[in-house]
Amino acid sequence: MITSLFFMALQAAAHASAAGAPPAAVSPSGIVVSAPADAWADVASDRLLVIDLAGSRRLVIELAPEWAPVHVGNIRRLARAGWWDGTSINRVQDNYVVQWGDATEHKPLPAGLNAKPPAEYERAARGLTMRPLDFRDAYADGTGHGAGGWPVAIDRKAGTAWLPHCYGMVGVGRNLAPDTGTGAELYAVIGHAPRHLDRNISVVGRVLAGIEVIAALPRGTEALGFYADPAQRTAIVRARLASDMDASERPRFQVMRPDSASFAAWVRARANRKDDFFVRPAGAVDICNAQAPVRPAP
Amino acid sequence: MITSLFFMALQAAAHASAAGAPPAAVSPSGIVVSAPADAWADVASDRLLVIDLAGSRRLVIELAPEWAPVHVGNIRRLARAGWWDGTSINRVQDNYVVQWGDATEHKPLPAGLNAKPPAEYERAARGLTMRPLDFRDAYADGTGHGAGGWPVAIDRKAGTAWLPHCYGMVGVGRNLAPDTGTGAELYAVIGHAPRHLDRNISVVGRVLAGIEVIAALPRGTEALGFYADPAQRTAIVRARLASDMDASERPRFQVMRPDSASFAAWVRARANRKDDFFVRPAGAVDICNAQAPVRPAP
Repeated sequence: MITSLFFMALQAAAHASAAGAPPAAVSPSGIVVSAPADAWADVASDRLLVIDLAGSRRLVIELAPEWAPVHVGNIRRLARAGWWDGTSINRVQDNYVVQWGDATEHKPLPAGLNAKPPAEYERAARGLTMRPLDFRDAYADGTGHGAGGWPVAIDRKAGTAWLPHCYGMVGVGRNLAPDTGTGAELYAVIGHAPRHLDRNISVVGRVLAGIEVIAALPRGTEALGFYADPAQRTAIVRARLASDMDASERPRFQVMRPDSASFAAWVRARANRKDDFFVRPAGAVDICNAQAPVRPAP
Repeated sequence: MITSLFFMALQAAAHASAAGAPPAAVSPSGIVVSAPADAWADVASDRLLVIDLAGSRRLVIELAPEWAPVHVGNIRRLARAGWWDGTSINRVQDNYVVQWGDATEHKPLPAGLNAKPPAEYERAARGLTMRPLDFRDAYADGTGHGAGGWPVAIDRKAGTAWLPHCYGMVGVGRNLAPDTGTGAELYAVIGHAPRHLDRNISVVGRVLAGIEVIAALPRGTEALGFYADPAQRTAIVRARLASDMDASERPRFQVMRPDSASFAAWVRARANRKDDFFVRPAGAVDICNAQAPVRPAP
């Protein structure tokens, strides 16, 4: 469905807008394309973990130090030590996660790493800025978009907030509790949001680019999607922070600001699709179908 | 996360149960493995659309004639005519859908097809048997499992019900309204449930086997995930109903009965994960994270 006809309508709307005409289309994509420059915020380069995979494929992850400071501190340290260079993607479980790290589980960790981070599964909601998403959620009292466009779920009674396990969110692999993982073993969600993992794992970031590469990797045939044959693993050539790359080589991204008029219009349009294809707007959108628009910095 | 340690615990639980001990684990998988034979219902062979792809890969779809009788009638006719043989998968859009059919859009349809099916987007809820899922849903007044284990969403005011766009659900590609598609162009969901498509499209089935094959296909780089190069398409060798295959060759599947005690226990366990890995059960599960267990017939 959503044929090329639909796409042409969308392009036409974007074109009309670019030409100065009021935007006729209320499609979410049309709103993103026509959003003004001040609706976008740059992502700082020390928040970007750039993972180069075999075959000239690249994954770019935005880290969330506000949500998991100790784990993100570890991840930055691991990147600066080149620790992931030569490791691999070892697990791809359909409709669930892609996981990477040291397949041998014996690679020594860099000095200075916090080997026993606290459980950064949720944080106090007090003081949190959030644009509420006014639709029901099965797993939380409320959801919305925090600073930086992060998806957020909240527990009103407990007064806590956390990053939900939406498509493309990145978490820290761990063994059984009270182990919380160090950050050396990471995974990204590649299926329907496994929200039952919320508050059971430290979520440390989101994929800004390249999720379509790892989501298309062959599924592992062993238990939990681990590869049966080590040759099936995808090699990680190197992983580093964008801030440690030459300025000319750094990937640069922008996320739409939740406090912008464009964002408000975009959420409304996501919840009430009225472009030509749709005969019945849903009147709602769940937080994982409303992940903040991202674009390469122009 | 969910390491091999976790998996071992799960296997141990299943083993204990098979040996006659009361099931210690309350893991969903443990419940599925230990469910008695009468908790399962066979899927009739004339409901199974078997699609053989290039490379000896197979997709098996269960059709839902109760939900989209005219479209399913067309699909059965197309399968019996061998219409899909030699067509291809033409579109793979990340976190969205895989779509297949005739890339030329000029292949004549078989005689007797209903070229203008009605909009089978929802049906009357009256008379529908449904095991309710008592958790909030952003898109519907209620959700649950209908006969055959189908996920169901309902609109109390309108008195209607429909099959939601969960991972692996199959719908009918169409152009703009009032076109509803014939059933010749089909897609399967391979990402976070795009529930905004609910009631905008005829949903005709669900993938019982092989979703991990098509979900891992390379994403198309053209608009909407269409392949830029025809060579990237995956050929459909043939598609037929299992009932038209030799009995010895038919794939056979069973779905867990929503009215069984095992199903009730399984939903509870999905909503309240207490196996060793989990430190905080969610207390809820959304309909697309609670798709009925399926197994090859023993």
